Amino acid sequence: MAVPRSMRRTSPVTILLAALLSFGFLFFLLSPSSSTSLSFHSRHEDAAENPLSPPTKPFFKKQQIRRNGQKAPPPVVHYRLNNLTATANPAENGERVLILTPLARFYQEYWDNLVRLTYPHELISLGFIIPKNKEGNAATSALQAAIAKTQSGPIDNRFASVTILRQDFDPPILSQDEKERHKIENQKIRRESMSRARNSLLFTTLGPATSWVLWLDADIIETPHTLIEDLASHNRAVIVPNCYQRYYNTDTKKMDTRPYDYNSWRDSDTALEMAAKMGPDEILLEGYAEMPTYRALMAYMADKESNPDPRKIVPLDGVGGTALMVKAEVHRDGAMFPPFPFYHMVETEGFAKMARRLGYSLFGLPNYFVYHYNE
Amino acid sequence: MAVPRSMRRTSPVTILLAALLSFGFLFFLLSPSSSTSLSFHSRHEDAAENPLSPPTKPFFKKQQIRRNGQKAPPPVVHYRLNNLTATANPAENGERVLILTPLARFYQEYWDNLVRLTYPHELISLGFIIPKNKEGNAATSALQAAIAKTQSGPIDNRFASVTILRQDFDPPILSQDEKERHKIENQKIRRESMSRARNSLLFTTLGPATSWVLWLDADIIETPHTLIEDLASHNRAVIVPNCYQRYYNTDTKKMDTRPYDYNSWRDSDTALEMAAKMGPDEILLEGYAEMPTYRALMAYMADKESNPDPRKIVPLDGVGGTALMVKAEVHRDGAMFPPFPFYHMVETEGFAKMARRLGYSLFGLPNYFVYHYNE
Repeated sequence: MAVPRSMRRTSPVTILLAALLSFGFLFFLLSPSSSTSLSFHSRHEDAAENPLSPPTKPFFKKQQIRRNGQKAPPPVVHYRLNNLTATANPAENGERVLILTPLARFYQEYWDNLVRLTYPHELISLGFIIPKNKEGNAATSALQAAIAKTQSGPIDNRFASVTILRQDFDPPILSQDEKERHKIENQKIRRESMSRARNSLLFTTLGPATSWVLWLDADIIETPHTLIEDLASHNRAVIVPNCYQRYYNTDTKKMDTRPYDYNSWRDSDTALEMAAKMGPDEILLEGYAEMPTYRALMAYMADKESNPDPRKIVPLDGVGGTALMVKAEVHRDGAMFPPFPFYHMVETEGFAKMARRLGYSLFGLPNYFVYHYNE
Repeated sequence: MAVPRSMRRTSPVTILLAALLSFGFLFFLLSPSSSTSLSFHSRHEDAAENPLSPPTKPFFKKQQIRRNGQKAPPPVVHYRLNNLTATANPAENGERVLILTPLARFYQEYWDNLVRLTYPHELISLGFIIPKNKEGNAATSALQAAIAKTQSGPIDNRFASVTILRQDFDPPILSQDEKERHKIENQKIRRESMSRARNSLLFTTLGPATSWVLWLDADIIETPHTLIEDLASHNRAVIVPNCYQRYYNTDTKKMDTRPYDYNSWRDSDTALEMAAKMGPDEILLEGYAEMPTYRALMAYMADKESNPDPRKIVPLDGVGGTALMVKAEVHRDGAMFPPFPFYHMVETEGFAKMARRLGYSLFGLPNYFVYHYNE
């Protein structure tokens, strides 16, 4: 079977740089004063103490480390991960959320929105993967500055841990220009490369204590502050909000919103027939006039009425990744982002098919919005 | 598309218990004496100091933590993972190896063989996943006793870290009886369940500093002590030794060897034609008379001569998992063990197909043997 040349070339998706953002937590954990004051969910227990906090936080668990004032040999710590739930009330149950973001450009609005999330920050770990190019270097610097500020700011804002990975391969398309990125012939290559980035990030940051993974693209600059609680409250294996974009409507002379992400859909007979006729390395793409799939797109399922129900929920066959909430067990079972055509789909839509093959169901919230940056 | 009922039932492959085997390394890292004596690859730097060593070891990196005798804020640590190599000379390059073992029964011979591996133990992390049943409990106890002994024994024998995960679902077939396990109708269910176990283990233990993953089944009780060096020396993305079994030959009245693992093979036109005619949820299996695939099995490629070349290498399309050496980048790219029919293959053979789809080539060593327990 022929393997596309581009995949051969980029195949060693190893990682350039994982910035282990410090051992502040460990100092805290090992400091004499900490052993007496630990109580479940105390803010001090889980907050990063240092601006630079360790990515391995999800792997740790509180424990007594001193006995009679002596350093005691550390006990065997049991993660009772049958108690590691992923429920509709994650904060009450102390469920750790890993927010994963492939980052090409840093937007301050993205970070500000992240910091405003109401979910307890001591239960949130962040993971980033950034291309190794000039733009990626700039994004890394800006991100690190933002991290340093937040992690040394008010304790309630500090996240449990932050990991930054750098890819060792260039993104296949150099331009981040909107039109260039969306050209149909570039999409397959771009999304296969993005799949490898997502997989590298996922495989190296998921820990035994992670309950949920929230995929959040770096250009999502506005979400409800209760995003995590809201998505989790539906208690679904995989759930996606509707990704829109704000823009200036020249007709009405007012700010307006329009659909942005077309990757969340229900399948159609047409699409399935098109797929059946395709060669093994061809893929179906959504949102292109030259490839009409007649899939039912969640982008167009939003109710027009003035007070649409944000809890309206629809089953989906494909999902986008701009904002995507996944129970960690789905990933642990093996669901990843196929960097090769999988049932003629790649990346997040391939992930959706893989999750379905694993027996999970996927859902979307057509009236619950997150907003994409408008360049 | 219909999803097999058995997959629906077992779908939440979460993990019962991850035994975080201590913080010995951290004590060392943070102790005042350590900051002056660190030198690359010093035995003290990497050895676990405590019988119970942390599973997160592959995530750590040496660093200065004291400045002018004061605890300094931890610096940003860069994992330059473009320098994270996976080469033919892994020990010289300080490459960390993660040995992953799904464990149903504990054999002392397995552990003894592991301890005798000549690869620097301070570069080896171990990961186990054990079913949550009575037999699994017994295996966990025996394993923990063996770990405690080794990790408090001679420093050169101590491994860098050990992680134990417990599944929260029962193995689908209760009997470990050889005949029952190998019944053709049980194989698909058994191997899909094993895939989920392997994925859970892989996704939660792979760290940013892991160069190689060695899958080693718990019933592999004899390998060359230089197994890791030998397999790595071929510098292949994926490579498998030939898995045989020792037995008493009643004809010759002498101990003899015979093939055991039939999952490493080159494809045949017959097998490809059979697959093409199969339904989407059917799988091809190897080693069953009722399903003759005419694949070229590595089990039968061993040279009969008295001094066969152990470095003889053959390309493969499918691989078994009794002993399986994988560059970590293959997994990071997304190659996992499909718990659903993937091109009519599951588990390690499905993994092989996935690695091929990612552009990697797989190889086998027909004259290089590891030996399976004979019950």
